[in-house]
Amino acid sequence: MATDAAALSRIRQGVSSALEEFVGRQHDVLAAIGDDMLPWLRTVSELLSGGKRLRPAFCYWGWRAAGGVDCAEILTAAAALELLHASALVHDDLMDASDTRRGHPAVHRQFASWHAVTGYGGSADQFGAAAAILIGDVMLAWTDEMYHRSGLPSGALRRGQPVLDSMRTEVISGQYLDLVNQAAGHDSVASAMRVVTYKTAKYTIERPLHLGAAMAGSPSATRRAFTGYGIPLGIAFQLRDDVLGVFGDPAQTGKPVSGDVREGKRTVLMALARERAGAAEARLLDNALGDRSLTESAAAQVRAVIAGSGALAECEALIAANAKEAVAALDGAPITHEARSALVELAVVATDRQG
Amino acid sequence: MATDAAALSRIRQGVSSALEEFVGRQHDVLAAIGDDMLPWLRTVSELLSGGKRLRPAFCYWGWRAAGGVDCAEILTAAAALELLHASALVHDDLMDASDTRRGHPAVHRQFASWHAVTGYGGSADQFGAAAAILIGDVMLAWTDEMYHRSGLPSGALRRGQPVLDSMRTEVISGQYLDLVNQAAGHDSVASAMRVVTYKTAKYTIERPLHLGAAMAGSPSATRRAFTGYGIPLGIAFQLRDDVLGVFGDPAQTGKPVSGDVREGKRTVLMALARERAGAAEARLLDNALGDRSLTESAAAQVRAVIAGSGALAECEALIAANAKEAVAALDGAPITHEARSALVELAVVATDRQG
Repeated sequence: MATDAAALSRIRQGVSSALEEFVGRQHDVLAAIGDDMLPWLRTVSELLSGGKRLRPAFCYWGWRAAGGVDCAEILTAAAALELLHASALVHDDLMDASDTRRGHPAVHRQFASWHAVTGYGGSADQFGAAAAILIGDVMLAWTDEMYHRSGLPSGALRRGQPVLDSMRTEVISGQYLDLVNQAAGHDSVASAMRVVTYKTAKYTIERPLHLGAAMAGSPSATRRAFTGYGIPLGIAFQLRDDVLGVFGDPAQTGKPVSGDVREGKRTVLMALARERAGAAEARLLDNALGDRSLTESAAAQVRAVIAGSGALAECEALIAANAKEAVAALDGAPITHEARSALVELAVVATDRQG
Repeated sequence: MATDAAALSRIRQGVSSALEEFVGRQHDVLAAIGDDMLPWLRTVSELLSGGKRLRPAFCYWGWRAAGGVDCAEILTAAAALELLHASALVHDDLMDASDTRRGHPAVHRQFASWHAVTGYGGSADQFGAAAAILIGDVMLAWTDEMYHRSGLPSGALRRGQPVLDSMRTEVISGQYLDLVNQAAGHDSVASAMRVVTYKTAKYTIERPLHLGAAMAGSPSATRRAFTGYGIPLGIAFQLRDDVLGVFGDPAQTGKPVSGDVREGKRTVLMALARERAGAAEARLLDNALGDRSLTESAAAQVRAVIAGSGALAECEALIAANAKEAVAALDGAPITHEARSALVELAVVATDRQG
């Protein structure tokens, strides 16, 4: 296990270095366009400096599992997924009107403040929103640029391309399904699960593994095993997020306490609680969900209802069962011993965390 | 000339067919994700059905100029630029809070209406904005997918990739510079020109030509000639847009009359008018600019000031001079006779138009 932890730390460092180098090159590109572009770089660097690097780690191990050699180029290609993710976060925060991200102001808030400080005219909020749209756009475009500049052989990039394509369409669609669920008041466990499948399970785990495996030219049996591992592990990962979004410690999550409740997120945890709660308690949950000015004592009541209904325990049981199913799917898969061991460790990292 | 017009029409048809086929394939992808995704397709098809296809036409002729053979694959790769452009329009309309595009409601308005019709809960405007962000995102991602699936040899795609990368960064940066100009009240001709260079001249003409030429493996002399042609022609193209944005016929432009004034666009035309107008007239322009509820008679006054100041005539003279400079830059360029003739015709199409 010590070896796997060291390997993960080495992957994270390689990913961070690749991102720093890429952003450094974009510094020169943006500076040539004009000094007004430079505030983007601090924002982008900050966005890319955090995170668990889970998607690149899965991409890397998909590659190694299928026999790809360890090299800087695969870490660069895998790091491109961090640009895609940062883009999604910036647009997500704007759509959700979330004010913070990883303990920093969200990008639309940063640029609204910049507008005010600089003494610009017009609406600061509209300026902040527009800047967030454009910065999300540029990082989405850079995903592709970084992937293609990774230095991997063109055959590998060509094999990976359709997976990268699917991944982008799926995560963007998943975000829309989430939006529709919230707007339509779809609050069943099934509709929440559909969002989790596209917005998280495929996007965070299955597709990054597929991308690495496809680049390495894996057989289809490997891809099937990665689906068997990735979907349940992705569900477990999201359920952990659901729990942290209500019960997590802000110091560790970087998000406000019970932020998911105030933002009205229709999570699986919340759907389970509504199904199990009595009528009065379900009403309490419905009233709290999406109430931006929810007091801390009302939030504490919500947490008590979720725990008291048994939904929290059920969620924990689902996390454990899905993580177990994920690891079992690797049995007999045609992958290297080293990759199997790393993927078992990553299953723990993805589900047994505080932030 | 008849031959060139027929060639342009054939390019437009090829581009439209390629886009229809691509969207057809995405229909199956989105339908598999869920029926809730299907409203996207009508919106995307509608966005892709209009337009002058200028960027694909320049890309095509960049390819042919450098000796690339005429084939369906180059039209498909070139058509990918329409996805990039549609993405930029959707996000632009949202940032500008423009209600219409090409005679249809803007995407954020379409989805706000859909929200109301469907009886969704929450804010219709917020839902519409979020849908527009995501639809713009998916089309930006599809740009890349369509380009790489065009069927052109991988060497050609690899040579074109850095140009596509620059093009995306430049247009997104140009949009931000535009935003900063508007917020900072930068109203000089020079600051408006900088936006035109990145948001239009490079993006609409120079880079599409470079993309086609790079894919065909052109020598650097061809690229230099395309810069000499593309930048002035792009400026002329945008100045024509500036004129149409104030003086154009809504039936032909698909935009409200004098829409640029109400939207507060800091165009070169407006900068010229401010420089030339007397103090009282400049104040009239400043007050009108960005006034959403500007009456038609006040708009008529603005048009009279712009024309009376001589700015309209100067703009027309600049259009003519830049178009002439563009065509002259092709002299002696190492490109095919057929391409030269088509590019001369395209210079007319880009600058001598009503909508």
